[in-house]
Amino acid sequence: MAIIVQKFGGTSVADAEKIRRAAGRVIKAVDNGYGVVVVASARGKQTDQLIADALELNPNPPTREMDQLLSTGEQQSVSLFAMALDAMGYDAISFTGGQIRMMTDSVHTKAQIRSIDAERIRKQLEKGKIVIVAGFQGIDENENITTLGRGGSDTTAVAIAAALEAEECEIYTDVDGIYTTDPRMFKDAVKMKHICYDEMLEMASLGAGVMHIRAVGFGKKYGIRIHVRNSAKETEGTIITIEELQMEGVVVSGATVQKDMAKIGLVGVDNIPGNAAKVFAHLAKAKVVVNDIMQTEISPEKANLSFMITTSDLAAAKQATEEIKDEVNCESIFIRDDIAEVSVVGVGMRTHYGVADKMFSALAEAKINIDSITTSEIRISCTVDKEQAEKALQVLCVAFELDKPAQHRTKWN
Amino acid sequence: MAIIVQKFGGTSVADAEKIRRAAGRVIKAVDNGYGVVVVASARGKQTDQLIADALELNPNPPTREMDQLLSTGEQQSVSLFAMALDAMGYDAISFTGGQIRMMTDSVHTKAQIRSIDAERIRKQLEKGKIVIVAGFQGIDENENITTLGRGGSDTTAVAIAAALEAEECEIYTDVDGIYTTDPRMFKDAVKMKHICYDEMLEMASLGAGVMHIRAVGFGKKYGIRIHVRNSAKETEGTIITIEELQMEGVVVSGATVQKDMAKIGLVGVDNIPGNAAKVFAHLAKAKVVVNDIMQTEISPEKANLSFMITTSDLAAAKQATEEIKDEVNCESIFIRDDIAEVSVVGVGMRTHYGVADKMFSALAEAKINIDSITTSEIRISCTVDKEQAEKALQVLCVAFELDKPAQHRTKWN
Repeated sequence: MAIIVQKFGGTSVADAEKIRRAAGRVIKAVDNGYGVVVVASARGKQTDQLIADALELNPNPPTREMDQLLSTGEQQSVSLFAMALDAMGYDAISFTGGQIRMMTDSVHTKAQIRSIDAERIRKQLEKGKIVIVAGFQGIDENENITTLGRGGSDTTAVAIAAALEAEECEIYTDVDGIYTTDPRMFKDAVKMKHICYDEMLEMASLGAGVMHIRAVGFGKKYGIRIHVRNSAKETEGTIITIEELQMEGVVVSGATVQKDMAKIGLVGVDNIPGNAAKVFAHLAKAKVVVNDIMQTEISPEKANLSFMITTSDLAAAKQATEEIKDEVNCESIFIRDDIAEVSVVGVGMRTHYGVADKMFSALAEAKINIDSITTSEIRISCTVDKEQAEKALQVLCVAFELDKPAQHRTKWN
Repeated sequence: MAIIVQKFGGTSVADAEKIRRAAGRVIKAVDNGYGVVVVASARGKQTDQLIADALELNPNPPTREMDQLLSTGEQQSVSLFAMALDAMGYDAISFTGGQIRMMTDSVHTKAQIRSIDAERIRKQLEKGKIVIVAGFQGIDENENITTLGRGGSDTTAVAIAAALEAEECEIYTDVDGIYTTDPRMFKDAVKMKHICYDEMLEMASLGAGVMHIRAVGFGKKYGIRIHVRNSAKETEGTIITIEELQMEGVVVSGATVQKDMAKIGLVGVDNIPGNAAKVFAHLAKAKVVVNDIMQTEISPEKANLSFMITTSDLAAAKQATEEIKDEVNCESIFIRDDIAEVSVVGVGMRTHYGVADKMFSALAEAKINIDSITTSEIRISCTVDKEQAEKALQVLCVAFELDKPAQHRTKWN
C-alpha cells in the first residue's frame, strides 16, 4: 500500500469546521487508495494560551515541565481529528509522540529525533485505519516528554514519511506554496512548481518562513518528496525534491530579505591564532546565533572582526562582546543595527558565471550601497541599509526575472 | 521518609492563584519533613470544555479518543503545578499516568487500576523532589491512555498512597469534611471527626458526593488513612479509617437522602427459578444501574418483583422492562417516579438493637408514609414520597442526634 503523510498546521485545525475540512482532505487520499498518516499541530492559539498560563506561574519555567504542558496541545488536536473522521464514517486512531516511540534526545524544548517505531503505525494502516500522530513531540529514553521546537510538526511529518517510506509528505499551510520571493514585498512573485532541498534550505534559513529548516534537512537526508500546499484550495503547491532536469537553466530560483539584522565589529583585534575562536565561543555561551562572519587584516599585528546577528540577539551579543573585548586586545567595538541582508539563491549558480556581477550591477544602478558581501555555493548575500532593503529585493527580483515562471525566464546559456 | 499524598480537585487548581495556594499546602508538608506526592485533577471547567469540543465534532466519540483527549486536562494541571513549586523555590517533577505506569484494564472512560510503578515516584522523592501526578488517568498494556471515570483522581491518590505505603492520603476539596448529613437539607448537620470505610462506602453510594466510592474501597482494601479537608482552610477535616475505639457507642453516624429515585414493579410474574435473573440480566444489558430489589410472593404461582433506579435511568429501564415482560409472563407493570430514599448509616448498628424501630417511629410520628424498606448490615433505607423526603431526613437527623458531635450523643447502652 502506498502511503502519504499529510501535515496540518495549527490554523488548519483551529476549530471544528477547519478540522472537518482537513479531514475531508484526508478522506480524499484514502478514497484514492492511499494509506494516510496525518500529523497535526496544536489548535490555533492553544500553544500561546498555555505559554501564557505557564508564565503567569513562573517567569522561567523548567523546560521539562514546559514540554509536559505544551505537548497537550497536539494531543488534543489528534484525538479531535480522529473523532471527526469517525463521525464521517472513517476508522481512525490517534497517537501521541510517546505512543509511536518518537525517541529524541533530552534537550527539552528543542529535542532532536533519534528514531521512530514505524511498526505501530504500519500495523494500524494495515488494519485499514487512518493514523493521526501528534506533531512537535517525542519522548526521551526516560519517558520524559520532549518537544522539537519551532516548526517541529513539519519535522515530525517528514520523519514519519521517511520511516514509512511514504510516497509524499504533504505540508498543508495557509499559503499556496513557495514563492520566488515574499509576495508582500514584491507583488509579482510567482509560485515555484519545484525547488530542490539545498535551495529550500538556503531560503528557509534566510527567513522564507513556510517550511522549517530541520524538516527540509530531514527530507534531503532521506529523499522525501515534500509537497507544500494550501489547505483551503485544490491547487498544486510547490514540491521540494532533489535537483531535477527541468531546473536546468534556472540560475537564480528565489530571492529573500532578512530585515532586523545587526552587525557588530571588533576593531583592531590582536591577529593571533585562537582569538576569533575565543570571541565566538563566548558568544555561543551567551546563546547568540551568529550568521555571517568576516575578518580582514588591517596590519601585520591587527585585524578587524565582524559578524551579523538578528536584532533580537543584539543586547546579549553586545554584552558578550564587551566581556571578551580585553581578552583579545580589541581597540574598539562598533555596532550597526540598521541593516538588512538581501540574498539570491539558486542551485544553478554552481555552474554559471555572472550572478554576482549581475546582482551588484542591479543594486548599483538603483543607487543602493552594499555594506558587505558573503556567499555560499548556491547563494550570494549583500547587506544594505534597512531603509533600502525592500527596494533592493525588488530590484533583484526584476533583474533575475523572478516574476516569471522558471521556464519563461531568459536562458543563461 | 514518611510520605503524604495530597489530592487537589479541579476547583483547587482552577487558576494561577489557586494553584499557588495549593502549592503552599504542599510546601508546608515538605517543610515538616514529609515526602509529598501531589495528585491533581484538570483545572476548573477544562474537562467540560474538552467534552464540548469533542461533541461538536462527533455526537458519539470513540471512547479511546475521548480518553486521549480528556487526559490532557490533568497533564496541564500537573505541569503547571510543578512550575508553581519551582517558582516558589521547591524542586518538583510532574508525571502523567503513563509515566508512572499506572496500568489499567482497557475499559476506556471507566478503567480499573491494575498496578502502579511506585519505583519511579520513590526515586524522585529520594532525590528530594515533590512529585506531581496526573489524576484520573492510566494506560493499558498497549500504551493506550485510559481514564478512570468520575471521581477518578480520588482513586489515583488512594492507589498511590497504597503503593507508597503513605502515612495519609489528604483529599482537598471545597467542603470542610464529611457531615452527618447534607447541610443544605439539615442546617444543623455536624462535621464528623472520623468515619469508618464501611460507613463511608454506604454514604458515598447513597449520594453523599464528597468522596468517590471506588477510592474509599481502595482505601479500605489497603488500610489507607484518608483525610478529607478544605483546601481553603487550616482546620482538620474528616478522617476515613478503620473502625476505631472512639466510635464505639455511636450507632448511627450519618443520614442521607437520594431524591430522583424511581421504582418499577412487575406484577404477577411467574414464580419459577430464573425469572428474576432474566429480568436483571436484560436491565444490565441496557446499562441500567439497579439499586434495591424486592420480591414478594402473591400466590403459589405468582410473585411481584420491584426494583429502584435513579430517574435518569428510567426511560431505559422502562423500555427494557417492556421488552422482557412477556418472557416472564408478567401481568402488568407499574412505575413510580415520585419517590425518594432516606437512609441511616452506622457501623454500630451491627451490635445494637432498636435502630429500625426508632427510625420507623420517628417517621410515623411525623406522618411520613414508608413505601418500602431495605437494609444492609450497617444501613436502613426507606422509600418515601419525594415531597416528604427533606422533612423525613430532618426528622431522622433529630431522632439520631446528628446535630451533635458523636461524643455528645445519648449513649445506647
